[in-house]
Amino acid sequence: MGAVSKLITEGIKSRVRRPSLFSKLTTVDDLIASGFFKNGMRMGWSGFTGVGYPKVTPIALAEHVEKNNLQGKLRFDLFVGASTASETEDRWAKNGMIARRYPYQVGKTVQKEINANRILFADKHLSEFPLDLVSGYYTLEKKGNDIEKLDVVIVEATAITEEGHIIPGASVGATPEIVQSAAHVVLEVNTVLPNYEGLHDITLGKFAPYKFPNLIQRVDDRVGTPYIPLDNDKVIAVIESEKLDKTSDSELQDDASHRIANNILEFLEHEVTMGRLPIHLLPLQSGVGNIANAIIGGLADGPFTDVEVWTEVIQDTFLDFWEHHKLSFASATSVAFSPSGFKRFYEMWDELKDRLVLRSQSVSNSPEVIRRLGVIAMNTPVEFDIYGHANSTHVCGTRMLNGLGGSNDFLRNSKLSIMHTPSTRPTKNDPIGISCVVPMCSHIDQTEHDLDILVTEHGLADVRGLAPIERAKLIIEKCAHPDYKPILKEYFDMAENKCMSIGAAHEPQMLDKVFKMHLNVMSKENTMRIKSW
Amino acid sequence: MGAVSKLITEGIKSRVRRPSLFSKLTTVDDLIASGFFKNGMRMGWSGFTGVGYPKVTPIALAEHVEKNNLQGKLRFDLFVGASTASETEDRWAKNGMIARRYPYQVGKTVQKEINANRILFADKHLSEFPLDLVSGYYTLEKKGNDIEKLDVVIVEATAITEEGHIIPGASVGATPEIVQSAAHVVLEVNTVLPNYEGLHDITLGKFAPYKFPNLIQRVDDRVGTPYIPLDNDKVIAVIESEKLDKTSDSELQDDASHRIANNILEFLEHEVTMGRLPIHLLPLQSGVGNIANAIIGGLADGPFTDVEVWTEVIQDTFLDFWEHHKLSFASATSVAFSPSGFKRFYEMWDELKDRLVLRSQSVSNSPEVIRRLGVIAMNTPVEFDIYGHANSTHVCGTRMLNGLGGSNDFLRNSKLSIMHTPSTRPTKNDPIGISCVVPMCSHIDQTEHDLDILVTEHGLADVRGLAPIERAKLIIEKCAHPDYKPILKEYFDMAENKCMSIGAAHEPQMLDKVFKMHLNVMSKENTMRIKSW
Repeated sequence: MGAVSKLITEGIKSRVRRPSLFSKLTTVDDLIASGFFKNGMRMGWSGFTGVGYPKVTPIALAEHVEKNNLQGKLRFDLFVGASTASETEDRWAKNGMIARRYPYQVGKTVQKEINANRILFADKHLSEFPLDLVSGYYTLEKKGNDIEKLDVVIVEATAITEEGHIIPGASVGATPEIVQSAAHVVLEVNTVLPNYEGLHDITLGKFAPYKFPNLIQRVDDRVGTPYIPLDNDKVIAVIESEKLDKTSDSELQDDASHRIANNILEFLEHEVTMGRLPIHLLPLQSGVGNIANAIIGGLADGPFTDVEVWTEVIQDTFLDFWEHHKLSFASATSVAFSPSGFKRFYEMWDELKDRLVLRSQSVSNSPEVIRRLGVIAMNTPVEFDIYGHANSTHVCGTRMLNGLGGSNDFLRNSKLSIMHTPSTRPTKNDPIGISCVVPMCSHIDQTEHDLDILVTEHGLADVRGLAPIERAKLIIEKCAHPDYKPILKEYFDMAENKCMSIGAAHEPQMLDKVFKMHLNVMSKENTMRIKSW
Repeated sequence: MGAVSKLITEGIKSRVRRPSLFSKLTTVDDLIASGFFKNGMRMGWSGFTGVGYPKVTPIALAEHVEKNNLQGKLRFDLFVGASTASETEDRWAKNGMIARRYPYQVGKTVQKEINANRILFADKHLSEFPLDLVSGYYTLEKKGNDIEKLDVVIVEATAITEEGHIIPGASVGATPEIVQSAAHVVLEVNTVLPNYEGLHDITLGKFAPYKFPNLIQRVDDRVGTPYIPLDNDKVIAVIESEKLDKTSDSELQDDASHRIANNILEFLEHEVTMGRLPIHLLPLQSGVGNIANAIIGGLADGPFTDVEVWTEVIQDTFLDFWEHHKLSFASATSVAFSPSGFKRFYEMWDELKDRLVLRSQSVSNSPEVIRRLGVIAMNTPVEFDIYGHANSTHVCGTRMLNGLGGSNDFLRNSKLSIMHTPSTRPTKNDPIGISCVVPMCSHIDQTEHDLDILVTEHGLADVRGLAPIERAKLIIEKCAHPDYKPILKEYFDMAENKCMSIGAAHEPQMLDKVFKMHLNVMSKENTMRIKSW
């Protein structure tokens, strides 16, 4: 107890309001030395989009593997709501510590290993992942709905309540269901982050026939608890953490992003004029990246007031949106600011804490709630095609980037679904070597049945109610880069003629040529600007 | 009034309980002679999957066009919840009377015209179509949410209530929202069908921010009214109809269907044993066609009791399912029996009327309710691919069959999503000329993120939790026809090697060869059994 009492620091005392947990305080070195972590374990972490992930234990485990040459010998199936950080999962990937990874990831090495099939990865709609986990879909050899599905779960808390429940940090994600599925729990109590208490609204994933309506009717409704319930008997270790979330600086917004944002803002004004949107709009969802940042930045300076947000991740430009008194309330599953953004966020805390709520990803991304609220969804794909399908995941159909994420939770169920992308991207040989508008997506994550609006810096195609051939003409006309327009037009005309001649022209394609642009960019020419079809 | 009083038949008196509507009684000839119907009108009909559609007016309008050589000169945009019948929409298609058709259809001529782009067709998730209509997405040039979007709507009723509201027949579909969107309504009161009063539970499509939780928690919950509300001021004509729904005989179940059904029943028993399904299963959705009929037939003779159904369409074998006391309650948006099936249905009416409810398609197909109830969804595609994407709509990527229908309302949101198909279909040259398991679907309606189980007569692949390369191996092994197995295996091995060499092997494909099987079946060889890759 002498050793333990030394661990009851002022920090721990101020954050852990359940004294019986003090007896489980330990150091990460002792935990690892105990031999608890074994090769082949199914492991869960808290965290979502680079915030709220456990730091001390994963980093110490990586060091343990590196020091003892255990690379490839201490491997885990890793379940996290979404991505964590380079210092944890990417370092684990380098050390061969990840056998499987679900359902979303970020990191150069993780991606490399996934594309070499040394890490088995399956992405999944983020709203469904926690329910699939609880339903036993990742543990098919186990019987029953209530079995402990994950051998160990490592969770970061910013406080522990009197009842021993978890107050998370900057993300909720799938942590409630991951904790619910745990056989054993390692608690990392972070004493350098602020205590986020009161910012969360937590509900647990229930499965049929024990599932009830989600009664959220407004973005600021609360239907859950401010904590993640925790069965304290499962806790095998409590460890103090003094590490901050390692987030990156926010991406610079280029000219193309601003032009895309302007196209979208103009369109939203048009919809208000036409009476299809209320003057304060409907709740917005905005993806991550520089276009999303530009759109939110544009809204912060734009004509709309009292705007609400129902989204997955809150990024830096939302701070302006609030500060300019345009954003009235935001709901998300994580706040993933840059380091300077977090500084601003904490300075604005007193004002923002009543204008923000963080929910479970099964709620932030819930089809039920998204459809009810009439969310306006906006995301960036790898590419979209002339008929309005989009590819969010696989470059040239085969190389995984990060995963599907919540893109289709939102785009499929929103009232207005908007896909925005620059019209081109550079290759080594050609500054516009990749057209993001193609004849057929090389991988399809969002179908033509899901998308209403397609936008690039060149224009906006509103394809609601249009037949495929009408969509194709409009998308090529409005969205394609001028250099690709004649190429795509020629393709469409040839395909239409060919398919008309065989009575099969509802959605004209030429299956022998459809990926010619993709094949060309994969070849030595390294550009989609083909000379002929 | 003399002319009108002759129209107040015993049939009309027994069905129309709102006497003020008698003054609007007319004959279809007088209605057409009045010149009300004009070229270019947007028109809505009641009806869903061949039942409950208006018959008198559409058939008389077709005769009018034929007699007066108006082919191609009296054209309408036609909005119906789903398909109607050959005697109406297919005859209209022959007469060039359809300019646009949303969102689903059946009929040889309709399909031919759609594939020649003489009818502009866009298919859409059936749950979303009514909301898109009410939201003005098919009438983008009109202002406001509440404008009358359809110039005229023709509705079949089996009775009219004291308040002047509509009691539909064998389907609800999108009729509530179509009526809600009407400027003018023509009522066809069917006096030869039974009065279906009491069988329906009707809710109207509302749009955000006026949308509330749907409180259905059990398949037999009722949350609406037994009628479709109707503003009687919109009624321009009331016409008596003495025509029955023209349905077809149900398809014969072949040996392959029975083997597929057995594979699924075995799997469901396994899931019960593993504790992932309750012993009475979860509510079932079953598509249309002979495999669906075989599955329901198998359940009627199978081990499960007190089974519930939450589906879109009820077909003939459901009658056995009820009669064998295995089916406790069914919810759908239409009952589409064969003529002999309807005879049995009416004989069983007294028993069945408390074990069946017909709802709006926005509810029967609601993602919110499907996910809450944990529906087990089963559908037949055109083809599925080795990674678990499916094509429900376009043969060889370009020729439209019927449309997406509700397939992905169910498959996307269900607790268990099952795609079943025969492993092959015949061509003129080859009895197994088409493999329904292909390297990449030529059109994608359901993505790999949506499907759990893929089944053919050869076996069942449970791909839950698997990475793409694991899925591919399992799907080829379990589902492909023995003659296609080596072809698909060779493709996968080649693709994996090629993609591994460039570090892009998460979902291996060869874009230059991926549609070679499709191209070969489209060629003179007319088979997918290619000799080499």
